[in-house]
Amino acid sequence: MNQQHLKKDLVIIKISGNIIDDEARLEDFLKELSSVKGHKILVHGGGVMATQLAKDLGIEQKMVEGRRITDKDTLKIVTMVYAGYINKKIVAMLQANQTNALGMTGADGHCIKAHKRKSAKLDYGFVGDIDEVNNDLFLQLISQGIMPVIAPITDDGMGQLLNTNADTIAAEIAKSLSQHFNVQLVYIFEKTGVLQNAEDESTVIPNLSYTYYQQLKSRGLIFAGMIPKLDNAFTVLNSGVQKIIIGSASQLSLVLKGESGTTISKDE
Amino acid sequence: MNQQHLKKDLVIIKISGNIIDDEARLEDFLKELSSVKGHKILVHGGGVMATQLAKDLGIEQKMVEGRRITDKDTLKIVTMVYAGYINKKIVAMLQANQTNALGMTGADGHCIKAHKRKSAKLDYGFVGDIDEVNNDLFLQLISQGIMPVIAPITDDGMGQLLNTNADTIAAEIAKSLSQHFNVQLVYIFEKTGVLQNAEDESTVIPNLSYTYYQQLKSRGLIFAGMIPKLDNAFTVLNSGVQKIIIGSASQLSLVLKGESGTTISKDE
Repeated sequence: MNQQHLKKDLVIIKISGNIIDDEARLEDFLKELSSVKGHKILVHGGGVMATQLAKDLGIEQKMVEGRRITDKDTLKIVTMVYAGYINKKIVAMLQANQTNALGMTGADGHCIKAHKRKSAKLDYGFVGDIDEVNNDLFLQLISQGIMPVIAPITDDGMGQLLNTNADTIAAEIAKSLSQHFNVQLVYIFEKTGVLQNAEDESTVIPNLSYTYYQQLKSRGLIFAGMIPKLDNAFTVLNSGVQKIIIGSASQLSLVLKGESGTTISKDE
Repeated sequence: MNQQHLKKDLVIIKISGNIIDDEARLEDFLKELSSVKGHKILVHGGGVMATQLAKDLGIEQKMVEGRRITDKDTLKIVTMVYAGYINKKIVAMLQANQTNALGMTGADGHCIKAHKRKSAKLDYGFVGDIDEVNNDLFLQLISQGIMPVIAPITDDGMGQLLNTNADTIAAEIAKSLSQHFNVQLVYIFEKTGVLQNAEDESTVIPNLSYTYYQQLKSRGLIFAGMIPKLDNAFTVLNSGVQKIIIGSASQLSLVLKGESGTTISKDE
């Protein structure tokens, strides 16, 4: 356990689509992120641009049981938007703030190994589930003072690109790199944290234990989109990651200090 | 001069858009490229997809004096297509052939420093001219057995992405890395080489000296698209690059051995 004191700190930050959609907010966020010292990895989601582009091109978005299916055309669009436009826009903005960023998908340097999701119930299309994270490349880049910026696309090692959940990518990188770093995993979105009342930003839960989470969930107080995020977070917490925080883009520095947002913790 | 014997070999290959447009041909090419031993960097152009996407979205392509102007919408499209779709497709195909590729633009790791083109005559829009190549990052990646795959997009260090000529990117990387490697620069396209008769594939000029090139040009035997490519090649040849070859995608191995295509050479 004492080994942890020898490890350096690493912050892995995942930003949601709605931060990306608002250019001014994204710029402010990346400026603040650049002022944070230490090793960092940024993982970004998608935003509305892919949906809008599909609409403009007359490509129908297939939804089955509330889930989006990634068919061939949709994969093309998300690859263009996530790995192309959004990823490079973020990298250029970070460079402008003297943060030497390098944009990647899981295919690049094969930093994430994935496979096409197999499901007996439903064909999700070209959706990736993660097998393994290639720590070596991340270690090399970080040691060169480079900040990896990850778009939520992976490949299967056989030439097929795959649309992959950004929350999961952040979590898997966090778990894997916790072998080498004291990892803090931070989910950044538009709200101030996990709220007791979804309508009221002042009801942030500062510390959320697993037991308390289960209670809130059973009382129907945790809303739909938050449940997979939190389920994921608690799994990650049991896999070597030191700390998980969920907080607001506009309060990044405070979130990183644990003075804003919701810190996910194990039961005492 | 003896230092050159201590340098390792590096092949920098630029592939043209029309190879990229033909998926089967691209796959064959990348398979053959993967079988070539030694250090490699791949630079790719655009192809028709960006033009088609602009058309599908009703974005008018502005041409002034035969040159395409990169306005804001066009920049968005080329960033999506070049840095997103094409770059990641190539990377995934290379991974499938056990070549550990990493896709990048000039913005990534700030591997290429550029500025927006200034021209008193014509506003080209968001077009980049190259200032400097960051050798360190390329050296690090190459030493890790990673093959950089470069999309023709750069940034200006102030947050602005820029559309940048892929031939020029290949040439500038070749010039800069010739400080560390014996660099061979290879332009790969759909023809067998520089032809004496543009209509006849059997008229490849195996060796093209500067004097001979000037003669052919004055006789109108070198066609339009080839002139900037060759002018560029002769400039590069005087900047430390060992060898420049122009040849066909379908004969890559022979081209690299100098047994196919046109080798650009200094006058004796």
